[in-house]
Amino acid sequence: MKKLTKAERQKELEDRLDEDPFLIDRELADLFNVSIQTIRLDRMELGIPEVRERIKAVAKQANSKVKSVQREEIIGELVDIQLNQTGISILEASDDLVLEKTKIVRGHHIFAQANSLAVAIIDADVALTGSAEVRYNRPVYINERLVAKAKVNKIIENRFYVKVETKINGETVFNGEFIIFSVGDNLVNKEG
Amino acid sequence: MKKLTKAERQKELEDRLDEDPFLIDRELADLFNVSIQTIRLDRMELGIPEVRERIKAVAKQANSKVKSVQREEIIGELVDIQLNQTGISILEASDDLVLEKTKIVRGHHIFAQANSLAVAIIDADVALTGSAEVRYNRPVYINERLVAKAKVNKIIENRFYVKVETKINGETVFNGEFIIFSVGDNLVNKEG
Repeated sequence: MKKLTKAERQKELEDRLDEDPFLIDRELADLFNVSIQTIRLDRMELGIPEVRERIKAVAKQANSKVKSVQREEIIGELVDIQLNQTGISILEASDDLVLEKTKIVRGHHIFAQANSLAVAIIDADVALTGSAEVRYNRPVYINERLVAKAKVNKIIENRFYVKVETKINGETVFNGEFIIFSVGDNLVNKEG
Repeated sequence: MKKLTKAERQKELEDRLDEDPFLIDRELADLFNVSIQTIRLDRMELGIPEVRERIKAVAKQANSKVKSVQREEIIGELVDIQLNQTGISILEASDDLVLEKTKIVRGHHIFAQANSLAVAIIDADVALTGSAEVRYNRPVYINERLVAKAKVNKIIENRFYVKVETKINGETVFNGEFIIFSVGDNLVNKEG
């Protein structure tokens, strides 16, 4: 992106954060080709709180929309959701998610974030994973911040084709295609 | 299987349990077409302990062979392992693995059992998941007992193609194909 004037940049910054409130200062700095400090000053001048506060605000709204799982059953923090369309969650790679020896995040936690997001965005009382194809592009280390975005690509009867892409600082580290089934309550409980 | 005499059945029972020490009484009863009580009496006469005791004994051996992960990092109980060849783990579907609403085991726990088994059987200091294709055949409910078997089908350089099949009482509920990479310690730590 070409260098903008301060006024242009601040206008653009507001627009970007309206679209994507979870963009962090480092990503914005890269985007506008300025220092992180400049972004912080811009935010202060514009009265935009830091990313954690922004996430908290949108997460509250997002969680209230979910039907298919309990809020605490989502792995990572849900920050945006449009039922049957899209969703975003953020997972901080804390100490308890990594292998002791290498400090690399265990693959099934990255899968769990994506899978629970894919289930959470379905507009149904019960949604179950039918199948998944996933790919890990590079190891993820402790303290990295995983941003997963899910998108429903296709709905055929009760089958939802959901694509999930997980990025760290803009770099794709994982992607998956999930087929999720919505299930009627009666169908589930007869066996349960 | 045709009805055997008691002596034949007890001989066969010993052979079966030598091969598969984690077979439970109900499965053996089905296999020999007798009651569970008959199997229990057979075991007592033969001095064969119940399945939990047998699992404990083999699990101890199995765990001592694993190199790529810490024992407590395996999801489920490892009961058999031949490095770079096969492995078996058992996971009891306890309360903390299920969705509150339906008592169905969350998909990522079943994935985690399979994935950590696929990694555990690799004969390397560090092994990471590259990709996975998984399929869930039916919902798994609380208190069911998941027996996962992994098999290395192919090794190409540092890539291991591992197939995992997870059964409940002989019925396949999940299967997956994993590609696992063995990684040199130096390669990992330079980034960690």
